[in-house]
Amino acid sequence: MINKIDHIGIAVKSLDEAVPYYEKALGLKCEGVETVEDQKVKTAFFNVGGTHLELLEPTAPDSPIAKFLEKNPFGGVHHVAFNTSDVVGALSQAKEAGVRLINETPKIGAHSKKIAFLHPKSTMGVLTELCQDGE
Amino acid sequence: MINKIDHIGIAVKSLDEAVPYYEKALGLKCEGVETVEDQKVKTAFFNVGGTHLELLEPTAPDSPIAKFLEKNPFGGVHHVAFNTSDVVGALSQAKEAGVRLINETPKIGAHSKKIAFLHPKSTMGVLTELCQDGE
Repeated sequence: MINKIDHIGIAVKSLDEAVPYYEKALGLKCEGVETVEDQKVKTAFFNVGGTHLELLEPTAPDSPIAKFLEKNPFGGVHHVAFNTSDVVGALSQAKEAGVRLINETPKIGAHSKKIAFLHPKSTMGVLTELCQDGE
Repeated sequence: MINKIDHIGIAVKSLDEAVPYYEKALGLKCEGVETVEDQKVKTAFFNVGGTHLELLEPTAPDSPIAKFLEKNPFGGVHHVAFNTSDVVGALSQAKEAGVRLINETPKIGAHSKKIAFLHPKSTMGVLTELCQDGE
């Protein structure tokens, strides 16, 4: 059961450039910045009516976001995350429908959420994350 | 003033393939299909907790979505739309912040919304739509 769009992950070259853009041009307010060592990214969050924008700046050349930026030098939407109250059940449903999973079991992401990714080749080009709020 | 993420526009080769994916793999329900002649697309809508997914299939080779699919043959996120109660004011704010506008004044989109696009070269690679609900 999907509840809502949890967040849209957006790859950016530089948070120092991107955060002021979202604040000044769109009038949004940055809620905070967090480094996720595991993913080698620094993220900035904006709450937009309950769905978040998650800006992602790579912290190392082998970060998945650095690789995305090689192909998309201006930046762009990296992934879409769906919030569910049962990430294990949602993964099973996707797998039964024939979707290739990047993560067979959830791992812990930013804000202690349980997260798992579906492979973009099974999801019509959209890297898709399923996530469940941490307790 | 941005209220929420109105929708995420996703380019797909075929709604006949993409709609069953979103229904079966993610358990979402398609709310309807609409052809937008002006944009040369056929769209399918899914309500996900108040934000919509808008799947976009091109209806002509010169559709903007057909061009996107030439570069992204699997499909992918084409644009992100922010809902505002004052699209003219939101456009002014973006322009004052130095953003290049694709539409200087709003036009009428699907569901009679007033819509306008910001240029992805000014928005860090994300084609950005501002939209206001129709009366």
